[in-house]
Amino acid sequence: MNTFGNIFRITSAGESHGPALTGIVDGMPAGVRIDFDAVEAQMARRRPGGALATARRETDSVTFLSGFMDGVTTGTPIAFTIANADHHSQDYESLRHTFRPSHADYTYQAKYGIRDHRGGGRSSARETAVRVAAGALAMQALAQKGIKIYAYASQIGGVALGKGFGEIDPELIDTNEVRCPDMAVAERMAAEIRSAASEGDTVGGIISCVITGLPVGVGEPIYGKFQAMLASAMMSINAAHGFDYGMGFDGCCCRGSQMIDPFIAENGRVTTASNNSGGIQGGITNGAPVTFRVAFKPVATLMRPVPTVNDDGEPVMLHVRGRHDPCVIPRAVPVVQAMAAITTLDAMLLARI
Amino acid sequence: MNTFGNIFRITSAGESHGPALTGIVDGMPAGVRIDFDAVEAQMARRRPGGALATARRETDSVTFLSGFMDGVTTGTPIAFTIANADHHSQDYESLRHTFRPSHADYTYQAKYGIRDHRGGGRSSARETAVRVAAGALAMQALAQKGIKIYAYASQIGGVALGKGFGEIDPELIDTNEVRCPDMAVAERMAAEIRSAASEGDTVGGIISCVITGLPVGVGEPIYGKFQAMLASAMMSINAAHGFDYGMGFDGCCCRGSQMIDPFIAENGRVTTASNNSGGIQGGITNGAPVTFRVAFKPVATLMRPVPTVNDDGEPVMLHVRGRHDPCVIPRAVPVVQAMAAITTLDAMLLARI
Amino acid sequence: MNTFGNIFRITSAGESHGPALTGIVDGMPAGVRIDFDAVEAQMARRRPGGALATARRETDSVTFLSGFMDGVTTGTPIAFTIANADHHSQDYESLRHTFRPSHADYTYQAKYGIRDHRGGGRSSARETAVRVAAGALAMQALAQKGIKIYAYASQIGGVALGKGFGEIDPELIDTNEVRCPDMAVAERMAAEIRSAASEGDTVGGIISCVITGLPVGVGEPIYGKFQAMLASAMMSINAAHGFDYGMGFDGCCCRGSQMIDPFIAENGRVTTASNNSGGIQGGITNGAPVTFRVAFKPVATLMRPVPTVNDDGEPVMLHVRGRHDPCVIPRAVPVVQAMAAITTLDAMLLARI
Amino acid sequence: MNTFGNIFRITSAGESHGPALTGIVDGMPAGVRIDFDAVEAQMARRRPGGALATARRETDSVTFLSGFMDGVTTGTPIAFTIANADHHSQDYESLRHTFRPSHADYTYQAKYGIRDHRGGGRSSARETAVRVAAGALAMQALAQKGIKIYAYASQIGGVALGKGFGEIDPELIDTNEVRCPDMAVAERMAAEIRSAASEGDTVGGIISCVITGLPVGVGEPIYGKFQAMLASAMMSINAAHGFDYGMGFDGCCCRGSQMIDPFIAENGRVTTASNNSGGIQGGITNGAPVTFRVAFKPVATLMRPVPTVNDDGEPVMLHVRGRHDPCVIPRAVPVVQAMAAITTLDAMLLARI
Repeated sequence: MNTFGNIFRITSAGESHGPALTGIVDGMPAGVRIDFDAVEAQMARRRPGGALATARRETDSVTFLSGFMDGVTTGTPIAFTIANADHHSQDYESLRHTFRPSHADYTYQAKYGIRDHRGGGRSSARETAVRVAAGALAMQALAQKGIKIYAYASQIGGVALGKGFGEIDPELIDTNEVRCPDMAVAERMAAEIRSAASEGDTVGGIISCVITGLPVGVGEPIYGKFQAMLASAMMSINAAHGFDYGMGFDGCCCRGSQMIDPFIAENGRVTTASNNSGGIQGGITNGAPVTFRVAFKPVATLMRPVPTVNDDGEPVMLHVRGRHDPCVIPRAVPVVQAMAAITTLDAMLLARI
Repeated sequence: MNTFGNIFRITSAGESHGPALTGIVDGMPAGVRIDFDAVEAQMARRRPGGALATARRETDSVTFLSGFMDGVTTGTPIAFTIANADHHSQDYESLRHTFRPSHADYTYQAKYGIRDHRGGGRSSARETAVRVAAGALAMQALAQKGIKIYAYASQIGGVALGKGFGEIDPELIDTNEVRCPDMAVAERMAAEIRSAASEGDTVGGIISCVITGLPVGVGEPIYGKFQAMLASAMMSINAAHGFDYGMGFDGCCCRGSQMIDPFIAENGRVTTASNNSGGIQGGITNGAPVTFRVAFKPVATLMRPVPTVNDDGEPVMLHVRGRHDPCVIPRAVPVVQAMAAITTLDAMLLARI
Repeated sequence: MNTFGNIFRITSAGESHGPALTGIVDGMPAGVRIDFDAVEAQMARRRPGGALATARRETDSVTFLSGFMDGVTTGTPIAFTIANADHHSQDYESLRHTFRPSHADYTYQAKYGIRDHRGGGRSSARETAVRVAAGALAMQALAQKGIKIYAYASQIGGVALGKGFGEIDPELIDTNEVRCPDMAVAERMAAEIRSAASEGDTVGGIISCVITGLPVGVGEPIYGKFQAMLASAMMSINAAHGFDYGMGFDGCCCRGSQMIDPFIAENGRVTTASNNSGGIQGGITNGAPVTFRVAFKPVATLMRPVPTVNDDGEPVMLHVRGRHDPCVIPRAVPVVQAMAAITTLDAMLLARI
Repeated sequence: MNTFGNIFRITSAGESHGPALTGIVDGMPAGVRIDFDAVEAQMARRRPGGALATARRETDSVTFLSGFMDGVTTGTPIAFTIANADHHSQDYESLRHTFRPSHADYTYQAKYGIRDHRGGGRSSARETAVRVAAGALAMQALAQKGIKIYAYASQIGGVALGKGFGEIDPELIDTNEVRCPDMAVAERMAAEIRSAASEGDTVGGIISCVITGLPVGVGEPIYGKFQAMLASAMMSINAAHGFDYGMGFDGCCCRGSQMIDPFIAENGRVTTASNNSGGIQGGITNGAPVTFRVAFKPVATLMRPVPTVNDDGEPVMLHVRGRHDPCVIPRAVPVVQAMAAITTLDAMLLARI
């Protein structure tokens, strides 16, 4: 199941330390002029190398192999590769027979009887580069319809943004390395990451996302609810452990009278006075911004010795080398944004809008 | 999109106030002897009528139309109907032109240009009766493989269970009307519901679920991760607003060193010393219990006057009559359990286990 | 795999001798006023009982359970049942342990380890009643867009119609019991069937089908070609053994210069001077009528003794009683038409037309 | 819809004159050691350049980018590219505004509003190189289970092989350039092609295919019948205009008594005395060889002037240059074989065999 989507679909392949990642985007509407620099800019946001991120040096440039005529999409599938430029495969030789805790080493080995142990192989978060490239294309198709998607760090470790979805300024997201649209909070978040890293430890967090400009009617009843599509997309991201939308988990401890969104008519158009529903009612968008959050666990790779077992079931001590982020949040922001874009465009096409 | 699943698939149809709900279960393994009383028992758990639930009287008996030979599944599709016995359609006449806040009335009307206004029509939670029936079949196929699924109320309004997944006794779940496996907490939860109801208000909550006995290897890499399948299933349930698994949202504010699950070998078998991963690593089950939570918003139907608009955009006052639960949690417990069973059996068949 | 289609989808269940067949149609466009008499009329065309057909008496009336509001589709799934009124299950007791030649008895038994032996169980052509009901709905949605579908007998045994797709008058199809739009040929076809039947034998044939009024652009490139969708639909019909479109098998022995369809412009609109392409080029409709044929094998149930084996592998003599057609063609005509309608509406919706 | 299959799935991208074709094979079983020379050998069979084929020089070497560990499949997706080495894009400049008769130029232009006119762009049969590469992998997985697939030319223009499926020697298929397993007939077929080519004309034909070694039970009831899967696969191949299996179109003019396949028991195993069913009964394999045929139209590109219209609807004369086969049959043989392998492996995995 390396394909995601119904009408707009991405298919992904590639291991962390093979020659390249490969993606195929199917169902892209024809006639969209693509800004390839904007694609590269999104890739740069996911790319390792910030002060808080791994030292791995990937240029992560996207080589497109099909689907365009003079820079315009033709409706045919868009294939691309992203070279794995910076192999340090020898760093991983010690992991050939060792199962890293809270990684996929053991489950892949058990499921397939064989695995690429270098850098996590297929289970590496490097796969998300394909999603960011595909999402950058989807975002451009959506932008033509006035739809915009913002994602940002709203919590890192114990440091929370403390602002609602409607209270942030998206222009501030990229003003800092954690991608939090509040510079003071961002500094505290960065300090939290550095504190964990200084102890060889890691920290988790939450990414919030807002989709604006959606028409009414996106999302399919019952099993194809827009929130179900988004949840599936988000929970497929490495290290994601939770998803909620609108009032989310906070709503469960409230009264209905505090939470219902009264309908009002503005200039003859029905809208809601509040948005605890997160822009979705009965699985279908109601025209308000769609708002959701994704919780990420702390990175499982610690930069200190950890006891584990090898594939003979013997206890061994794991000393990780290589390059690892102390917190996935800053680099996962464009991944959440990309998966939101892919899901939204797919849902729009399904709804024939 | 009224079909859910890949190999084991359920297709559902029917409105709240039509003659019947209809379900078709496809992909049921052949040769499973079905205990039809156990199916009815699950239906009874979802059925309205408890002290805390709506007064609607549905027998909710399942009439099977195909798929069995002498009570044993044959591998052919299982069709069934659930009659809508207790129509009070006239209760809903006043809703023909009114959009109830935080319901799907407006979005269905906008998407389709037509809707069945009686009892929410297709968007009614009555549809979940089909899921419970299908889930009861799936649970029996899973039980043959030693897999069990428990769901229970872990929070209602401000009252939380305060016990981890591994600390509860499933035998206690049905000892009380809120389905919380702690009788003292259950009483406080029931009081919370009654308090809201006494004010014509409603309250939300959280359902927790544990799947035990799963083999290693269930779940597909990348976009078919087991947690993504579960999230999609759960977020398709009416009123669900959040999903998390394992450490979930709580993990995001912790350090990695607190959260990784060390591998240990027990009797030559690899297992983990803790289960913050919720039984899933890299999207694939690792043999530990799969644990997750689903957050539900407060019921949107208040038993007091609420201002809203009609389909001409004019302000009107909504006075709901009819039969409505002040809290979905008790009756949603078997729905969560059913969707977990459906998803698990599908994932098992996908994994060819 | 009891579901067919992508956006417009039918799911079917039910055995020949269970209480009822069940169908669920998903993806029906909202706002289509349904002529239920026209649905019944199509059911009557498939129903057994003509002079040339089995003596089984089924009323085959369709009971709709969901999906309509005041006779108009609402976009929600349409469930229906078709009761199996005329059980003669005891006729089949002798088949409990016998494999009928060229039937699915042996393969179902081998695949599932259990089967309903009464009347072929799930493998009975009775299942096609669901398709005809669903197809009748699809035909009404298509008719609103000016699309019409005709199917007719073009060969029965050695008697061929001898007219091309464009040379027939659809009004004549139902003037005779074999459903051939040429009364003289129809008489010879009927004689062929009677001749076979008089010897306890059966005969095969070909059904031709024409879809008119299709816009340009229906069908998806590469694996979703319109002819691939149609072929899959037709080859899923009981007893179908071949499919071709346009010039079909006859084209393979011709020169390209005889077969290419020259483009011409008529009133500023591009069209073709001939239609050897069968209305499809590169998998996509070109605006000309789509034309195809389906070959059916002779019915495998002979009304004379046939040697076979039982499920112990012992030779036994098969004496079939019960009710069986000597030729499927007349009753398969509405089935081909229905599957063409289902496929066409699905392809239209996929193409967002 | 550039993906084919359910569990074993191929996704394809790329135009005739872009930088490369790209394929991703998903669902390949883990643990299969791949003979990459055998993959190249299949590619060579499809490659242009035989005496009867186009002069285009493609090396058609497959560059694998993922999915292997030390030459063994890991269960992760296999991505590959096939470079388009030999561009003569300028040959096609004259076609930028011209619709070639019986090609997809007009339908792609109408559907998408834009197309790559160079060499047919996405609609070029060059896409089938991806299928052959993917099929070569599938064939190796099938061979491990004792399943073999043979395809061969059984008719070219007016020259028919005149032998049944069981009467041919697969060893002879590649002894001649038309891939007919009878050297005398092959010479007459080659003469037929040369005769057409000498007049700037083209010729069609039929490819027959046999799958041996299949277990009982492959294929899913009703809409997933094995013949429906094969028909969809075959009708997705460029220029294919017909499909039949077993007795096929010839069976439609026969009596049932001539066509039923009597069951017999051999060494305690049920088998059939004849194979008019083509190895499939009720959509499920019965253990006999699966046999089918695919009809191909004559190539639509004539090497002589042809009248047509341009995209302004004006009549123009088409003078094709470039490189074109006078008959697709010899090069389509490995394509039919590949699609049969892909479909068979997918059906095996669906059947959990």
